[in-house]
Amino acid sequence: MDTKILQQTFLTIRSNKIFELFVIFIIVFSALVIGLKTYEISPVALQIIRWLDWVITGIFLTEIIIRFLGEEKKTHFFTQPWNLFDSIIVIVSMIPLDNSDMALVGRLIRVFRVLRMVSIIPELRLLLNSLLKAMPQLGYVVLLMFIIFYIYAAIGSTLFETINPVLWGDISISLLTLFRVMTFEDWTDVMYETMEVYPLSWFYYLTFIFFTAFAFLNMVIGIVVNVLEQESARIRKETHEEMTLEDLDSKIEELKAILLSQQKIRE
Amino acid sequence: MDTKILQQTFLTIRSNKIFELFVIFIIVFSALVIGLKTYEISPVALQIIRWLDWVITGIFLTEIIIRFLGEEKKTHFFTQPWNLFDSIIVIVSMIPLDNSDMALVGRLIRVFRVLRMVSIIPELRLLLNSLLKAMPQLGYVVLLMFIIFYIYAAIGSTLFETINPVLWGDISISLLTLFRVMTFEDWTDVMYETMEVYPLSWFYYLTFIFFTAFAFLNMVIGIVVNVLEQESARIRKETHEEMTLEDLDSKIEELKAILLSQQKIRE
Amino acid sequence: MDTKILQQTFLTIRSNKIFELFVIFIIVFSALVIGLKTYEISPVALQIIRWLDWVITGIFLTEIIIRFLGEEKKTHFFTQPWNLFDSIIVIVSMIPLDNSDMALVGRLIRVFRVLRMVSIIPELRLLLNSLLKAMPQLGYVVLLMFIIFYIYAAIGSTLFETINPVLWGDISISLLTLFRVMTFEDWTDVMYETMEVYPLSWFYYLTFIFFTAFAFLNMVIGIVVNVLEQESARIRKETHEEMTLEDLDSKIEELKAILLSQQKIRE
Amino acid sequence: MDTKILQQTFLTIRSNKIFELFVIFIIVFSALVIGLKTYEISPVALQIIRWLDWVITGIFLTEIIIRFLGEEKKTHFFTQPWNLFDSIIVIVSMIPLDNSDMALVGRLIRVFRVLRMVSIIPELRLLLNSLLKAMPQLGYVVLLMFIIFYIYAAIGSTLFETINPVLWGDISISLLTLFRVMTFEDWTDVMYETMEVYPLSWFYYLTFIFFTAFAFLNMVIGIVVNVLEQESARIRKETHEEMTLEDLDSKIEELKAILLSQQKIRE
Repeated sequence: MDTKILQQTFLTIRSNKIFELFVIFIIVFSALVIGLKTYEISPVALQIIRWLDWVITGIFLTEIIIRFLGEEKKTHFFTQPWNLFDSIIVIVSMIPLDNSDMALVGRLIRVFRVLRMVSIIPELRLLLNSLLKAMPQLGYVVLLMFIIFYIYAAIGSTLFETINPVLWGDISISLLTLFRVMTFEDWTDVMYETMEVYPLSWFYYLTFIFFTAFAFLNMVIGIVVNVLEQESARIRKETHEEMTLEDLDSKIEELKAILLSQQKIRE
Repeated sequence: MDTKILQQTFLTIRSNKIFELFVIFIIVFSALVIGLKTYEISPVALQIIRWLDWVITGIFLTEIIIRFLGEEKKTHFFTQPWNLFDSIIVIVSMIPLDNSDMALVGRLIRVFRVLRMVSIIPELRLLLNSLLKAMPQLGYVVLLMFIIFYIYAAIGSTLFETINPVLWGDISISLLTLFRVMTFEDWTDVMYETMEVYPLSWFYYLTFIFFTAFAFLNMVIGIVVNVLEQESARIRKETHEEMTLEDLDSKIEELKAILLSQQKIRE
Repeated sequence: MDTKILQQTFLTIRSNKIFELFVIFIIVFSALVIGLKTYEISPVALQIIRWLDWVITGIFLTEIIIRFLGEEKKTHFFTQPWNLFDSIIVIVSMIPLDNSDMALVGRLIRVFRVLRMVSIIPELRLLLNSLLKAMPQLGYVVLLMFIIFYIYAAIGSTLFETINPVLWGDISISLLTLFRVMTFEDWTDVMYETMEVYPLSWFYYLTFIFFTAFAFLNMVIGIVVNVLEQESARIRKETHEEMTLEDLDSKIEELKAILLSQQKIRE
Repeated sequence: MDTKILQQTFLTIRSNKIFELFVIFIIVFSALVIGLKTYEISPVALQIIRWLDWVITGIFLTEIIIRFLGEEKKTHFFTQPWNLFDSIIVIVSMIPLDNSDMALVGRLIRVFRVLRMVSIIPELRLLLNSLLKAMPQLGYVVLLMFIIFYIYAAIGSTLFETINPVLWGDISISLLTLFRVMTFEDWTDVMYETMEVYPLSWFYYLTFIFFTAFAFLNMVIGIVVNVLEQESARIRKETHEEMTLEDLDSKIEELKAILLSQQKIRE
């Protein structure tokens, strides 16, 4: 019975708006500390930051424990991906790496604390979910785009390898070069170089740009249409459109039947 | 009674189409004077421009006073942001800064006179309002984008600082460098440099480009859907859709009730 | 009576599909001749091209005359902008400029013969018309964009003139530099240069990019919404939507009135 | 009778899900082998790859034969473009080119085996079909864009040839340069060069960018509107909209006729 009351207390804390704001404040503060570390700072300031780091870790640990104890069914806690993410970030950042060779890794892990912003603000979580949900629908367009990239990369590294091995050395480097061409970043430099050997290689680049631009455009339009359809379906449900013209039609037919039956009776 | 008539006179002037056109002409003229000052000009011309500047300031001051006196409730005048903006621009440009060290500041303030074009043409004011109204809806996407930027900047300035301190020195410089990468401006130069030390750092850039492009795309689509929804809601109101199918349904039900009651009476 | 028959004959020729195809062929041929002249060619070939040029001009002149004579009301012919355009192109290209200093001008005028493709193919004419029709709607967004450009150019040429007069010398050069920044073309080079003197000038560039991108986005969305609205209005007209729910409502009300009057009679 | 049973057997194999997955696996494997060849590899590995190549060709040949024999009407097989494409790829890659001067051509042909992915996965085939179907609708916009390009290229190679023959030498090189300008790739370098001779040539570039951007935008919007229209037509068919308001109207008219005839009888 005692644990029940305790759990209720923790649940109250967890749902408290001030508690949430305090956690957001700590995340922002932790982000600022991470940013500060990238500047050249005096050893004293560095020492203070190191202390602050431990204080932040302590607060995060306390918060996770409160959220865990506030959960009614303990096993349920770790089935939610964001809880899992939060726990891993907090636990990993407690491993003492600061004075070892792994100091860099330790700093990088702390960076991901900023992502806790997403796990704590429901609107951001929702946004990210909707972004992730849109991905599988793009599957086949991405596959098609990868096939285009792969074929062009294979051709490119076969034909242009001897011209510039830095750009066309093997298929993975060629893929990177093609991505560069797709972003139009100094793509003419790449082209002019190969055109000296193969004067018709402009055809290779122009068709590549055309195909990828077209596939990309198709992807964008696909998403737009998808989103608009979902929206219009939602609106149709919300407003009057629960009733269809067919429904009205059957009602009018009913009226007609009544009228005709009255006529029959009288005749 | 006398002030009432005066106020009415000023209101008439203010609402006059010719008065408005004259003010627009003066704003355009003032913009041309500002533009002229950026060219190398003879001292005589400069002196003329300085005189013109004072004439323009005088006209603007007169215009503001007319508009103020034309207002029925004087306190109401300063609650409108555009009136406030106009007044500040006119008053500040009257501070004599031309011969002091602050001459540059004086010139810059005069530049904002061009913005008076927005405050005087209602269509531009409307357009700007609708642009500003669209912003808060983008809030969370912008926050998400900033989180992505911040995490990548923190990682970048941690890993790449020793490679090129000009680009990755601290977190604020890194944010600028990442914005540059997002605009595809010589981003491969940045990447090739870090790939010499970390051969896998292409992954850093490609994921960054992917995430920001995806978030940006989402933002654009969000605006499009928003605008289209507002439009369709507006159209639905304007046209027939004030009546819903449910309304018709209840009317038909009424008819049926009448018919059935008639039948009952007759039986 | 005789001229009437002649006019009819010319109208028949003009409406002939084969005649149209022949003119299109001549335009394409003339375009190829123009293209050929940009290559280094032997004097003999050049002489042939010059002859071909005169032949093409002759055919174009004949075609214009046929179209003119085929018109029922002669004054009506020149009120159509495309007829006027065609006539001017043909007449101007008959002025003998080949051997004078104006040879270059003569060649440039002949280039515009390619535009006759638009005047002869109805679908292209339609497309161009719809493009031109979309423009005035963009008026205010373009004006707003120009105001943004002008203010930034005035600030830029005031602050940065001494840093790099080639890019920021006067307001017109600054406008060109800002357009370059908007297209992201080596914009960081421009920025890094001014950041050495004014370290905070990144704010100038980032806000500029943000404002113009936002205004541009707004313009695009404005066009999309416009086009979609016109389309949906067109569809609504074509399909069932000529009848509105209000119409049906009044019909049902009529039925009700009849029913109630019947009831009254019987009572 | 015997061939009939055999054909049925092959049809069963062909429709088998495991058979399809096996073919997809072989295509992916063949793509990896193609990729592997672009790396520097030991002669032993090269020999293994050559053997694998023949094994893959063998499997592809077997698969095509199975699919051919599984077809009920043999002549029908080659009328489907994808079957034709598959057959050509397989047959051509059987020509022994590895040890001749044509080795490069042989390798390039093998690259197109990756495209068999599209021919084997129905969703990709569908996607590509819908992409190809969208093209003819763009016909006139592309034609208009080409006319713009051609006119600007003719002007460019006439005026700027002497300034930089590498960029403006003849009309085909000018077309490539203009495409470069359209992608904003170092376009200011091209412009600044010609502006030294013709200070007003910025007008040439800015109008070109404006026209192409506008035509491109129009193309994109055209596709979006097209897709949305098709979608809404599809939805209208699927849902209630098979019944129109006109249908309901005529039904109500019928009711009215019945009512009025009843009234007449009674009078």
